[in-house]
Amino acid sequence: METKTLYKISYGMYLVSSKKGDKFNGQIANTVFQVTADPPKVTVCINKENLTHQFIEDSKVFTVSILDENTSMKFIGHFGFKSGREFNKFEGMNYRIGMTGAPLVVQNCLGYLECEVVDSLDVGTHTVFVGKILDAQVIKEGEAMTYAYYHQVKGGRSPKNAPTYIREDREEKQKEEKKMAKYKCVICGYVYDPEKGDPDSGISPGTAFEDLSDDWVCPICGASKDEFKKID
Amino acid sequence: METKTLYKISYGMYLVSSKKGDKFNGQIANTVFQVTADPPKVTVCINKENLTHQFIEDSKVFTVSILDENTSMKFIGHFGFKSGREFNKFEGMNYRIGMTGAPLVVQNCLGYLECEVVDSLDVGTHTVFVGKILDAQVIKEGEAMTYAYYHQVKGGRSPKNAPTYIREDREEKQKEEKKMAKYKCVICGYVYDPEKGDPDSGISPGTAFEDLSDDWVCPICGASKDEFKKID
Repeated sequence: METKTLYKISYGMYLVSSKKGDKFNGQIANTVFQVTADPPKVTVCINKENLTHQFIEDSKVFTVSILDENTSMKFIGHFGFKSGREFNKFEGMNYRIGMTGAPLVVQNCLGYLECEVVDSLDVGTHTVFVGKILDAQVIKEGEAMTYAYYHQVKGGRSPKNAPTYIREDREEKQKEEKKMAKYKCVICGYVYDPEKGDPDSGISPGTAFEDLSDDWVCPICGASKDEFKKID
Repeated sequence: METKTLYKISYGMYLVSSKKGDKFNGQIANTVFQVTADPPKVTVCINKENLTHQFIEDSKVFTVSILDENTSMKFIGHFGFKSGREFNKFEGMNYRIGMTGAPLVVQNCLGYLECEVVDSLDVGTHTVFVGKILDAQVIKEGEAMTYAYYHQVKGGRSPKNAPTYIREDREEKQKEEKKMAKYKCVICGYVYDPEKGDPDSGISPGTAFEDLSDDWVCPICGASKDEFKKID
């Protein structure tokens, strides 16, 4: 089996949120699909180990924010590579409370869906939740971020809980990472190491310095990207 | 509810095939996605009225051919807008017989997956089939066709059995179609009417003459597109 065949499957990039009591959580997901038109229903595939899974199972509601192509890696890292068990991901975020009581993140989003879980299917490591769409609103015009764009243009990675995470690929990429150059901040001396990334700013390990967005700053002194020099 | 929000969900374009006894059938689908990595499984969402649905239910196997971005509208029309109840869609096609006995179409495809149905979920008008991937092979390099590309660049439409078919949108597009110009073949007098399209050549109703590919020819006399004149 050539697992790289699976990379040719197309996906979007979404922020899937839910609630449990008065707590909110959300995560990045690429597996949101409309499954019926009448009535409109979508499915979303969530890893059982994720806190969002627990919240959706508990409240039977979820929301989907459709990410804009221009969404920063920092925003994706915040929701996609960190766990809501450690902190409240919604603090300081621009969101509304929808009709289900679940949060609707509006920043970086082209639109959102509010869904009520009407069925679910256990597929092993993940659950496919079927959501009846209660409301759907466009927030702004623009191109939706695709999974291909996230990987190819933004240099993003798949967290190990993603349905599309493939170990062999990961190992291959880790080999490539060893060849990536380190960069030093000329202001404070901080060294950006692509093998480590900058998790506090949402930059996952394995991100080349060249792939950091232009608004990325030194995590120590706040110097901009052009204050960095390559280390040979 | 603003149903146009749903247009921002990203999909690919696939040919999903199956068998029943010694008969083959296949259809275009946009709802293929990986749901687990270990073991690798995909889901596909198929309308209950489609012959492919009947075949998958019967044989418990299906294959997915991942369409190349350069796939012609004629090929998509052949598999997507016609029914296998009326003729054998595989006649004259370039395909292999996979390990499951189901056909693997290789023309116009970047790769294929062979799947065994391990579970399914009734979602109303459609069924979500869960397929364990038995084999996956890359056929060639290239860009996968996305649903957005099919609609925006190729001018494609959704058949009424698609999960993403939306009536309001269809009506709106039909209004637009009324403004589209007819074109007459100067060789044989055939009139291309965008409201009717050219279903025999895989051109669905509502396709503007301007959106026909350059290799489209007059269905009556075989004259090329530049032999047509606009009718006022």
